[in-house]
Amino acid sequence: MSYPTEMEHLIDSLATLPGIGPKAAERIAVWMLSQHAPQAATLSHSITQASESIRPCTTCGFFTNSTLCTTCADTSRDHSKICVVEQAIDVIPIERSGAYQGVYHCLGGKLSPLDDIEPDDLTISALIDRVRANPHCEVILATGSDVEGEATAAYISMLLKPLPCSISRLAQGLPAGAGLSHADALTLSRALTGRTSVE
Amino acid sequence: MSYPTEMEHLIDSLATLPGIGPKAAERIAVWMLSQHAPQAATLSHSITQASESIRPCTTCGFFTNSTLCTTCADTSRDHSKICVVEQAIDVIPIERSGAYQGVYHCLGGKLSPLDDIEPDDLTISALIDRVRANPHCEVILATGSDVEGEATAAYISMLLKPLPCSISRLAQGLPAGAGLSHADALTLSRALTGRTSVE
Repeated sequence: MSYPTEMEHLIDSLATLPGIGPKAAERIAVWMLSQHAPQAATLSHSITQASESIRPCTTCGFFTNSTLCTTCADTSRDHSKICVVEQAIDVIPIERSGAYQGVYHCLGGKLSPLDDIEPDDLTISALIDRVRANPHCEVILATGSDVEGEATAAYISMLLKPLPCSISRLAQGLPAGAGLSHADALTLSRALTGRTSVE
Repeated sequence: MSYPTEMEHLIDSLATLPGIGPKAAERIAVWMLSQHAPQAATLSHSITQASESIRPCTTCGFFTNSTLCTTCADTSRDHSKICVVEQAIDVIPIERSGAYQGVYHCLGGKLSPLDDIEPDDLTISALIDRVRANPHCEVILATGSDVEGEATAAYISMLLKPLPCSISRLAQGLPAGAGLSHADALTLSRALTGRTSVE
């Protein structure tokens, strides 16, 4: 005996979600069908509604239920600063920091030849158009500090150099609240290279 | 800026699933809305369909899309053996072992005064009725070997004693393929108590 067909389908669908293995999918399906039918109905409704209404912002690529996302539509924000991030999800920690009042540009990934992700797979040409239409803006390259993130930032800054914009990169160094004994060699080397003068 | 309302609702719904925290819910929502809309639609459809069609088997409590589950409806199985398990999910490993040809009875949990689970919260009276209607059957108590599982088995065997049925309990001892050095004291003590004679 195994589970009824509809339940097997549900388990298979749940197992396609990222981070959910077959065991977890089975546990979730049993939970849904045992006594939590109202939550299951709510979830199914939320998925349908979000899939239908959420699309990428036509300007920056962040999630929106309209044409522009709330940041791009907000005239009180500084539209002369464009923070370039890899994924839309990277916008949230920057917003949470409260340290940025400009707008964003989501690339949709980072250059990674091993995964077959080339410049055309990212929204780099849209960024160039955006910078051209917005002269004297500042582009802040906020891709990750891993090899692919650095390569993506280097590639974009090469393309942007001829345009009338200033280009900056997120500072690298010690994370806040960390002791030197836990910092790795590359982090320390970057913290030394990027040292700031104390007035 | 935060996520659009529909996306926040989706994240909240996902976070109610067992084993899914807020971070995992966010990652799944982003995955669904980024480029995996077909999978999201399939999942939503699977949830609705399973919620509508799956119900407990009227006899044993296992999941079914009909009145009886496939085991209870199968006349080739031995209906004079009733294996009592805590949860419907416990049926699957027993079926996988291939060592059992009887039918099941899912209690819906185990006695646990600390969690306010009393005999009336389980399907114990349905089991008694089932045994009464099926005289000379064998009841195999396959609840867990933890304190609550043992207490549940002891309670049920007390109620079943006056009835014309035989009662057995799953053997306890060394798990297959394990060395003695990894066995805990209680497992070893039970393996010794339950030792079987070698012909």
